[in-house]
Amino acid sequence: MRQSHLFTKTRKTVPKDEVSKNAQLLIRAGFIHKEMAGVYAYLPLGLRVVENIKTIVREEMNAISGQEIIMTALQRKEIWERTGRWSDEVVDVWFKSSLKAGGEIGFGWSHEEPIGEMMKNYITSYKDLPISVYQFQTKLRNELRARSGIMRGREFVMKDMYSFAADEKKHLAYYESAKKAYMKVFERLGIGSDTFITFASGGAFTKFSHEFQTICETGEDAIYVNREKGIAVNEEVLTNETLDNLGVTRESLEKVNSAEVGNIFNFGQQKARDIGLVVRDAKGKESPVWMGSYGIGITRLLGVLVEKFSDAKGMMWNTSIAPYPVHIVSITGGNNDVVSEADRLYDLLKEHGIEALYDDRDERAGEKFADSDLIGIPLRFVISEKTISQGGVEAVRRHDGVSTFVPESSIIEYATNFAV
Amino acid sequence: MRQSHLFTKTRKTVPKDEVSKNAQLLIRAGFIHKEMAGVYAYLPLGLRVVENIKTIVREEMNAISGQEIIMTALQRKEIWERTGRWSDEVVDVWFKSSLKAGGEIGFGWSHEEPIGEMMKNYITSYKDLPISVYQFQTKLRNELRARSGIMRGREFVMKDMYSFAADEKKHLAYYESAKKAYMKVFERLGIGSDTFITFASGGAFTKFSHEFQTICETGEDAIYVNREKGIAVNEEVLTNETLDNLGVTRESLEKVNSAEVGNIFNFGQQKARDIGLVVRDAKGKESPVWMGSYGIGITRLLGVLVEKFSDAKGMMWNTSIAPYPVHIVSITGGNNDVVSEADRLYDLLKEHGIEALYDDRDERAGEKFADSDLIGIPLRFVISEKTISQGGVEAVRRHDGVSTFVPESSIIEYATNFAV
Repeated sequence: MRQSHLFTKTRKTVPKDEVSKNAQLLIRAGFIHKEMAGVYAYLPLGLRVVENIKTIVREEMNAISGQEIIMTALQRKEIWERTGRWSDEVVDVWFKSSLKAGGEIGFGWSHEEPIGEMMKNYITSYKDLPISVYQFQTKLRNELRARSGIMRGREFVMKDMYSFAADEKKHLAYYESAKKAYMKVFERLGIGSDTFITFASGGAFTKFSHEFQTICETGEDAIYVNREKGIAVNEEVLTNETLDNLGVTRESLEKVNSAEVGNIFNFGQQKARDIGLVVRDAKGKESPVWMGSYGIGITRLLGVLVEKFSDAKGMMWNTSIAPYPVHIVSITGGNNDVVSEADRLYDLLKEHGIEALYDDRDERAGEKFADSDLIGIPLRFVISEKTISQGGVEAVRRHDGVSTFVPESSIIEYATNFAV
Repeated sequence: MRQSHLFTKTRKTVPKDEVSKNAQLLIRAGFIHKEMAGVYAYLPLGLRVVENIKTIVREEMNAISGQEIIMTALQRKEIWERTGRWSDEVVDVWFKSSLKAGGEIGFGWSHEEPIGEMMKNYITSYKDLPISVYQFQTKLRNELRARSGIMRGREFVMKDMYSFAADEKKHLAYYESAKKAYMKVFERLGIGSDTFITFASGGAFTKFSHEFQTICETGEDAIYVNREKGIAVNEEVLTNETLDNLGVTRESLEKVNSAEVGNIFNFGQQKARDIGLVVRDAKGKESPVWMGSYGIGITRLLGVLVEKFSDAKGMMWNTSIAPYPVHIVSITGGNNDVVSEADRLYDLLKEHGIEALYDDRDERAGEKFADSDLIGIPLRFVISEKTISQGGVEAVRRHDGVSTFVPESSIIEYATNFAV
């Protein structure tokens, strides 16, 4: 993409009510646009990062037999009444409206109920199970206060997966495989070592649910980490009983700020009992399906990644999710030879399947470098009169600022092998 | 995908309020799930078709310099009040709700206003233009009556694009390029020869807007087609003046039922004037931006394609958008050699990058063929004891039922070259 064609520009100012670092940087770099508090549009560079995160999550969900679907924003009242979750006193984040054709309607803040209801069409016998389905859905939540930029929004993208099993053993085995898949996702996003499976309060059926909490200074949560065991405990379940259960001492725990990037929940048979989703076993006996739910906040993850991987100059993306893996910056000084060499490099990368953002704008070097630092693409190729005279480009790593001269013959190899 | 793992199953029955052919077939084949009237979830096979349609549309929008973004469902009242379109008397499809934090909020049924408003951040000088942005957005519309299955919904996916130009000449040139891009989309979807640029009523600025209408027996519209010129006229502008303008006679027109699959609209400078989106020319003089809007109903297209390409047995997808290009159907009759040969074919196709749906279920041949006809994948490879003894597979074309024997050595070539 030629930057001269990109409609977004970097900005010096942000909306004055925007206090969080993640939204400030993303707005200044032109990745997102603030529609209102907690509601953001995703512009070309931001959308590319979101899609890259989704691709990683999709691959790991497919790897544990997840089947992708997409449910609806509009929600039927009856479905939620059946499980007692239509009332605003029980669920305080509903957006509701009325249908012109008559009757109330809700907007999806979660999708366990409609997915469970739908599954009645496809699950009758134990032979139909196990099943696991997931979606990337825009959730709408009427939060009293939208905070932390894109980390807690009124409108946000969530990957939510639901598993259905015929017996407890298969159910728990799937739950464990999902835990592992989640850790793979966070490792691929570069936050594996800072993300902890965190014991949180369970429900009617289970003692604990499991959160995935990433250490993050500006996170809204506080967790108690045992680094040796690689686990953590949420404040709400920090009791002597829990510690005994987990075999850790209070002294071994370190309190840190964190952001919840994922949450998995074991419903046992309770949710299916409420919904009326039953399965027949080999003898024809009916019992409620064993269900689990598994969430990852996609746009929240984006916010956490910005909070963690940024400095005073701007953002720093890992190669796996960067909007583009390479940023070509030409410093022409009015010299047309530099323009044509930079054009040639852009075409060369394209021929080798390497997508680049190409800053071909007629701007001063200082401005171009500042914009490049703000946007945060991990590898920058600088072309100038000087690099041309030397027969190559200057490669600058965004993460540590280290620069290397790369001769023309090695450019493709260098770009292909580069990854942070 | 092994069909034994696919959670959806074909169904004999559909919800009793579902009278349209497209939704009936899509529900029976397990492509969609009806949440309520005009509101459908997309299941694995249906979602794959939707994504295939989006890919074609995306490629053609990128080819005319469209930049992909995603706006928000939640809409600020103030933005729509400014253009006089917040009132339910002016726009009768709003879903509205109230924010817990105070104030009314709308749900996006269109996005011209917020995109125009956002562009104020990025457009100041004529040098910033032209710009064209598009999104695939889930639109929410409070229709009094939801009809025609997924062809007119309360919740549906639309590709909407908006163009911004500094002067009329560039604006009209872009408008024309969009017309051509639209026809390319419809050609790639296999409905090019049945889709007509149709003159419809314009707005304050222009005499006509342009609809793209596809001949379709069950369509909601009626158009008057001049096949020779490849154009059509909407009922609302069928006047002598229009006919004179277009140089066609009333006698040359043929009345047909049709479905609107796209709509493009020339706003001139009016919309930007209402929004307050201005641009400075080379002399520093400010004037409103020239705007156009360009819509394609993605899920409606899916409905139209089912209406047009189906028979008594089920659906018939073109290769370009089929959920899978190949359907492997094994007729084992309990013979394990057939199972292992079918497994081998499935792996062979995968190795060559050909995705197949593989009916590996333990079902009767008749049931498998009926399901395969209903799902409508264009190319079916049947493996049985008979085909194994002959050293190949039977290739059956869904569109005309013609079957051919393909020897093992030619299978990849046959599958690669096959396209309808």
